Amino acid sequence: MSATDINYDSSMSRWEPNARGRLEHAAMSLYVERGFEETTVAEIAERAGLAERTFFRHFVDKREVLFSGASELQALLVRTVAEAPASTSPIDAITAAIEAAGEMLGEHRERSRERQKVIDANNDLKERELIKLATLAAALAESLRQRDVKDPSASLAAEAGVAVFKIAFERWLLDRSERSLTQLIDESFRELRDVTSGA
Amino acid sequence: MSATDINYDSSMSRWEPNARGRLEHAAMSLYVERGFEETTVAEIAERAGLAERTFFRHFVDKREVLFSGASELQALLVRTVAEAPASTSPIDAITAAIEAAGEMLGEHRERSRERQKVIDANNDLKERELIKLATLAAALAESLRQRDVKDPSASLAAEAGVAVFKIAFERWLLDRSERSLTQLIDESFRELRDVTSGA
Repeated sequence: MSATDINYDSSMSRWEPNARGRLEHAAMSLYVERGFEETTVAEIAERAGLAERTFFRHFVDKREVLFSGASELQALLVRTVAEAPASTSPIDAITAAIEAAGEMLGEHRERSRERQKVIDANNDLKERELIKLATLAAALAESLRQRDVKDPSASLAAEAGVAVFKIAFERWLLDRSERSLTQLIDESFRELRDVTSGA
Repeated sequence: MSATDINYDSSMSRWEPNARGRLEHAAMSLYVERGFEETTVAEIAERAGLAERTFFRHFVDKREVLFSGASELQALLVRTVAEAPASTSPIDAITAAIEAAGEMLGEHRERSRERQKVIDANNDLKERELIKLATLAAALAESLRQRDVKDPSASLAAEAGVAVFKIAFERWLLDRSERSLTQLIDESFRELRDVTSGA
């Protein structure tokens, strides 16, 4: 175990070795084994060898375990658009952002597959995932407007980017080949361009 | 009142003059006046001058009043894609479908504005609207696959179409000009093509 695996839990005034990671791992195992609905926070804490109140210091509820990466993802997308050179076209700024997201997520295919299976089995979680994607699209459109891209171009480029992300991500989870998530994202952007130009 | 305004209510074995339309109108007025949450089915029925059980013969709940057009819309989209000539490109089939939807919805701007205001004020309704759009995208992608369009082209064209629809619809609700919904849809498809090609 490396130093980065240790989180200092200030409210307990003692070290809790990687409490957050252990809780995430325990939650995902239980969601896959028993289903999301059937799993309680008490069971997650027990499986992780931690107290229930430790769970609630890291997560609002058992749903948040599946969505805690969303704000980090959104920050990365917005930052990448903001940092693109001024001469970059809207779709190239969006492509850079989606590629950055692909790099961030692309390391964990097995975990992403498990997460997707849990989400697909539960309507509330599927709704939450749709809201996440809509929120990301709105944030991307806003970051383009900050670069003086006018609407509807800003909204269209952002929605196109999120559509590509969603479809490339699904392909990546199903894909048995060695293609990376970023390769599939690039391919999907090209295919979107072809499809919208009537190819 | 014309003959088409009369719905025969078979379960009561008597004529109920346009019960469904009266309930829709009463519900929308109350949602705008008091908010969706604060309105009860009993109040809707009373405003419409009908019994509460008449409401439940037409709608499952007060939310369905706002979404009862979704299945008709989906059927229109799917039918339009299916009926496009075999030589039509995926994006042209999707464009035809979204234009048909624009024609169906484009007659009722004031009512659509009211509906949107009600939806925007309520998170559950906003979620329901996102689910509706995701369901339409899935149905459009499936109707393209029925035409032997392969994925990811089918999914990308469908997602692009729904993005255009969403953005054109928002523009139309905000628009003070006389541009029709179908004009805005055509314009948005052109802008999407320009934006994805890097313009």
